[in-house]
Amino acid sequence: MSTTTPEVKAALETIFAADSSLYRSRGFQRRIGYGTRPALLVIDMANAWTRPDHAFSCDNMDEIIPANQALLAAARDKRIPIVFTTTAYQDPTGPRSDTGLWHMKIPVESLLEGSEAAAIDARLAPQAGEQIIVKKRASAFHGTYLAGYLRSQRVDTVIITGVTMAGCVRHSTEDAIAEGFRPIVVREAVGDRVPGVVEWNLFDIDAKFGDVEPLQSAVNYLEGLQAFAND
Amino acid sequence: MSTTTPEVKAALETIFAADSSLYRSRGFQRRIGYGTRPALLVIDMANAWTRPDHAFSCDNMDEIIPANQALLAAARDKRIPIVFTTTAYQDPTGPRSDTGLWHMKIPVESLLEGSEAAAIDARLAPQAGEQIIVKKRASAFHGTYLAGYLRSQRVDTVIITGVTMAGCVRHSTEDAIAEGFRPIVVREAVGDRVPGVVEWNLFDIDAKFGDVEPLQSAVNYLEGLQAFAND
Amino acid sequence: MSTTTPEVKAALETIFAADSSLYRSRGFQRRIGYGTRPALLVIDMANAWTRPDHAFSCDNMDEIIPANQALLAAARDKRIPIVFTTTAYQDPTGPRSDTGLWHMKIPVESLLEGSEAAAIDARLAPQAGEQIIVKKRASAFHGTYLAGYLRSQRVDTVIITGVTMAGCVRHSTEDAIAEGFRPIVVREAVGDRVPGVVEWNLFDIDAKFGDVEPLQSAVNYLEGLQAFAND
Amino acid sequence: MSTTTPEVKAALETIFAADSSLYRSRGFQRRIGYGTRPALLVIDMANAWTRPDHAFSCDNMDEIIPANQALLAAARDKRIPIVFTTTAYQDPTGPRSDTGLWHMKIPVESLLEGSEAAAIDARLAPQAGEQIIVKKRASAFHGTYLAGYLRSQRVDTVIITGVTMAGCVRHSTEDAIAEGFRPIVVREAVGDRVPGVVEWNLFDIDAKFGDVEPLQSAVNYLEGLQAFAND
Repeated sequence: MSTTTPEVKAALETIFAADSSLYRSRGFQRRIGYGTRPALLVIDMANAWTRPDHAFSCDNMDEIIPANQALLAAARDKRIPIVFTTTAYQDPTGPRSDTGLWHMKIPVESLLEGSEAAAIDARLAPQAGEQIIVKKRASAFHGTYLAGYLRSQRVDTVIITGVTMAGCVRHSTEDAIAEGFRPIVVREAVGDRVPGVVEWNLFDIDAKFGDVEPLQSAVNYLEGLQAFAND
Repeated sequence: MSTTTPEVKAALETIFAADSSLYRSRGFQRRIGYGTRPALLVIDMANAWTRPDHAFSCDNMDEIIPANQALLAAARDKRIPIVFTTTAYQDPTGPRSDTGLWHMKIPVESLLEGSEAAAIDARLAPQAGEQIIVKKRASAFHGTYLAGYLRSQRVDTVIITGVTMAGCVRHSTEDAIAEGFRPIVVREAVGDRVPGVVEWNLFDIDAKFGDVEPLQSAVNYLEGLQAFAND
Repeated sequence: MSTTTPEVKAALETIFAADSSLYRSRGFQRRIGYGTRPALLVIDMANAWTRPDHAFSCDNMDEIIPANQALLAAARDKRIPIVFTTTAYQDPTGPRSDTGLWHMKIPVESLLEGSEAAAIDARLAPQAGEQIIVKKRASAFHGTYLAGYLRSQRVDTVIITGVTMAGCVRHSTEDAIAEGFRPIVVREAVGDRVPGVVEWNLFDIDAKFGDVEPLQSAVNYLEGLQAFAND
Repeated sequence: MSTTTPEVKAALETIFAADSSLYRSRGFQRRIGYGTRPALLVIDMANAWTRPDHAFSCDNMDEIIPANQALLAAARDKRIPIVFTTTAYQDPTGPRSDTGLWHMKIPVESLLEGSEAAAIDARLAPQAGEQIIVKKRASAFHGTYLAGYLRSQRVDTVIITGVTMAGCVRHSTEDAIAEGFRPIVVREAVGDRVPGVVEWNLFDIDAKFGDVEPLQSAVNYLEGLQAFAND
């Protein structure tokens, strides 16, 4: 079993409390807040991460899938831009592989472009007009057209969900604020596969890169928006 | 008929001679030369550009296709990295289109991802281990994993072919040198669809961004390389 | 003397007319138009380009400087973001030079960071709150924080001026639309140093990457804007 | 006092042991190893981070400064490319600030370009031919010319030091592997300002993005290299 135990959680909470005290005294942990034109960014909610028995399988899908469904429903209702990512390769194992150097750290050789493993989980079912970006690296922005696409839609806020917290969600959030978007990471809608890393990466992000918000906050925000024009 | 007439060619040659004289006196038009680890970058040699009756159809394929075939044969023989690009969209026409703003200048709404129009021309037939990058913008580097991929292969030189000269080939060449690669543009292997633009874009590139070389030079260079290790 | 002669201009106009006819029949040369939140991007109007006797000196400053002054006055009046670029190097000539590979094509070894040659022309006098970006490559976007900065200001339109048309202005314009901004290039406010290249690069840009507009159009647009809030 | 206590360290070690067990069974935590052409990347070792009494002041400089000095000595001896970064702004507080959105999370308004706070610590004293990149965001690669510069030097490996581990060092390491370079993070040469974050960020990096190595390993590697040619 790979979820965080109560003892570990308690130890981390002790650290976070001490760190927060120092951060706040120094002027960190500010609130970036929601803007007026959000997009929803759903990271790597593909079968290799959301289903069991894969090297990349993550925990806690019983909570993460419904949280993503709730956000997708609210986002679709307001016609905001929705982007899914998956990580997959045309040539996962050859000497000229598009895995670049990443297979030298993690088992990306198991991720074939076009395979069932790399497909977005059917429970989230991307619809027409929603983008599916096949990325090669951790960040949804790195080596993709995401930043230019979001800017062409005049987006100012990126609501971020998915997996994994210590990898693709973390790197994407760092890039989002660097690119000039307000990152909002939804706590119940993100996950990982080893204990502790969801907690400490959310802690680091909230201190420095974006706001970590509960699902209800993000849903309320979306429901309160005027629907985007259909043009 | 859309190829450059002799009169136009003569007028352009007169301009180029005067410009070259000034450029050389100022220290422009230097030679960057070939490095030791090349890749071959074949830009947008997909049916929408290489076949007739499409908004993007280009001229002179009787020369351009064989030139690309010759370069591909030499490149495959030495196992150097080969990358094809095409330009295509998941949602060419909707209000959340991945064409971004480009449909406001050119007819990108005709380029559907996965369509026959967007497929690489069968006469060039990408093989296993060769990358096909579906780009959204003019440059093969912009919003793609190309630079990171080439770096992971320790490439120092990019031999560039394809279409169009005034659009994707020009922008890709500018980005190639900016990213730290030596661009070599092969004169017989590039094209466009309106008179003059091949000539003046090659002139600008050779003055500032990369070397414009005849096909035989690039083939000779590739044939003289030691084959890349198969790992 | 290096400006375009009437004969050359006539030859180019003949080519442009034929090319425009084909472009229009294919659906190119569309109008992107002005958006609602512009920035002004003034490229390389530094002494090495605007004053005589430098390898990079450009022509026609009697028209280009006043055009830029007019745009700056209108932009400052509405408090829109203003960005100047210059191209300069910490180490122009050493074995670890930040010129990268560019010194192998053009005389960038003459551009020392912090020198008078690399300073913005005093006739344009950057003011507090206006950015001066020291770039290393042709594009104002490539390897700089420009895209992220403009996004953080919720900019949707980039009004582009400066030099050189065949180098930095061209590459910056291509990147601007790729990044999701509407590029507007102001005809009287751009220049170069050899005959013909202003004309053909404006032609290529207007066909594919951004709108080329007369100075009066851009000034009128800026004057018609509501001033940006001072926050 | 803000260093990690023995109790916290023990709790984290327990988590890391459990996580490592799962990671290894899944094929993570692989070794990327050193390549043949390294650069040394020293992140934000400027006075605002290395000296007391600043919002950004970090701990443990008694160990971190000597570790960086040892790496710099070895790197200079072999003439490998050396890059320092600092984070600073032309306009830290105005309505058009180049802090972008980052001042909405952390106290970047205290970092003025050209100030003593933003200068590299004199104990590390950058020398002629070494780059000092003034970055605006966390990553040394984001919005800078670093990737293109390193590629122009044919670098394949980036030895990473500096602060802070939870911010700039983490994001730079993620970008380094994404860009196609082998990241090696030197344990004794990195730091931060709140307990725990050095440990968990090193853990995440070693699992997924780069190798975390002791100082002696990196020094030995550099000492074993042939010196780079001085051209």
